[in-house]
Amino acid sequence: MPAGVKADAKRRELVAQAAALFDRAGYHTTSVAAVAQAAGIRKPTLYHYFASKDEILFAIHDEFIDLLIERERARPADLPAADAVREAMRDVLELMDTHRGHVRAFFEHYRELSEEARATIARKRDEYEAAVERHIAQGIERGEFRPVDPRLTALAVFGMCNWAYQWYRREGRLSSREIADRFFDLLLNGLRR
Amino acid sequence: MPAGVKADAKRRELVAQAAALFDRAGYHTTSVAAVAQAAGIRKPTLYHYFASKDEILFAIHDEFIDLLIERERARPADLPAADAVREAMRDVLELMDTHRGHVRAFFEHYRELSEEARATIARKRDEYEAAVERHIAQGIERGEFRPVDPRLTALAVFGMCNWAYQWYRREGRLSSREIADRFFDLLLNGLRR
Repeated sequence: MPAGVKADAKRRELVAQAAALFDRAGYHTTSVAAVAQAAGIRKPTLYHYFASKDEILFAIHDEFIDLLIERERARPADLPAADAVREAMRDVLELMDTHRGHVRAFFEHYRELSEEARATIARKRDEYEAAVERHIAQGIERGEFRPVDPRLTALAVFGMCNWAYQWYRREGRLSSREIADRFFDLLLNGLRR
Repeated sequence: MPAGVKADAKRRELVAQAAALFDRAGYHTTSVAAVAQAAGIRKPTLYHYFASKDEILFAIHDEFIDLLIERERARPADLPAADAVREAMRDVLELMDTHRGHVRAFFEHYRELSEEARATIARKRDEYEAAVERHIAQGIERGEFRPVDPRLTALAVFGMCNWAYQWYRREGRLSSREIADRFFDLLLNGLRR
């Protein structure tokens, strides 16, 4: 394995450990020393990868939004709009299983990022949100969906799915996939008998 | 005005000022001294009302959930389920106009409450969530709604509405009432053409 790839893998591992620790112990009360300790490395070694706690927080945000964007880009362009929306909902819910700490940091500590970091993350987040909004707009154009407000509908979709980070437990009665699919059914078919 | 009523009003005013300041400047970085300064009183006077920053945070949580519970209790028992759900959605969205700081504290700083305070708030929040869930279950029983999962549907409703605290701006193109009503239409009638 080339040195760069190995360093990237180590960095990702440290980001994952930091995100989990922030989730457990709170971002504000967790020191860089505590992150190093949780990762089983010395503080100077951690500083080799990250200049500060801020930089770790940025890496968490960046990884999280990149994961969503990658999945979005991997979808075939001719996917029916309903399938594209369902897949997006599954993606967000699945990250609550695999990247729980990332999810909390992304939703609760965005404002703690530096101005420059916020700009980078906001740009990526806007790109992702616009892609989901586009699926809804296309669904309307193609006659799959009712003529709703695409932006507001995307915000409803994100609301349903993102909010799950407040209540979703891996050991709950429904899997993240089942929750996504039931939310999608509710969104598509509505509550009315 | 009796002294107790006056003290209650002053307390509420201080809670509102603290909530707004936490929203603007961040809960963790705001000191009790800064709260006193923003309220135009001396720190010892603030301590007359609240023993600590924790106690202010608890008061914010308590006021917020009490507002929702009061509105829920004020609804006529024979309201059609759809109307009860729409009213609940309007309530949450309206609080983003009137109690913006409360909303953020409630959603982002619950974990910073003391264990005892968390138990009190969790009990009230559960009571409120159960009431909304009951409206959905009644709607299913009465044949107004499809036989969906009432709990998961309540969580979808809260998701759509609560998440708005992340993006709602008072000066935006839609009022909080319009957003609530469009979300309700989406929930009731679904996206499918």
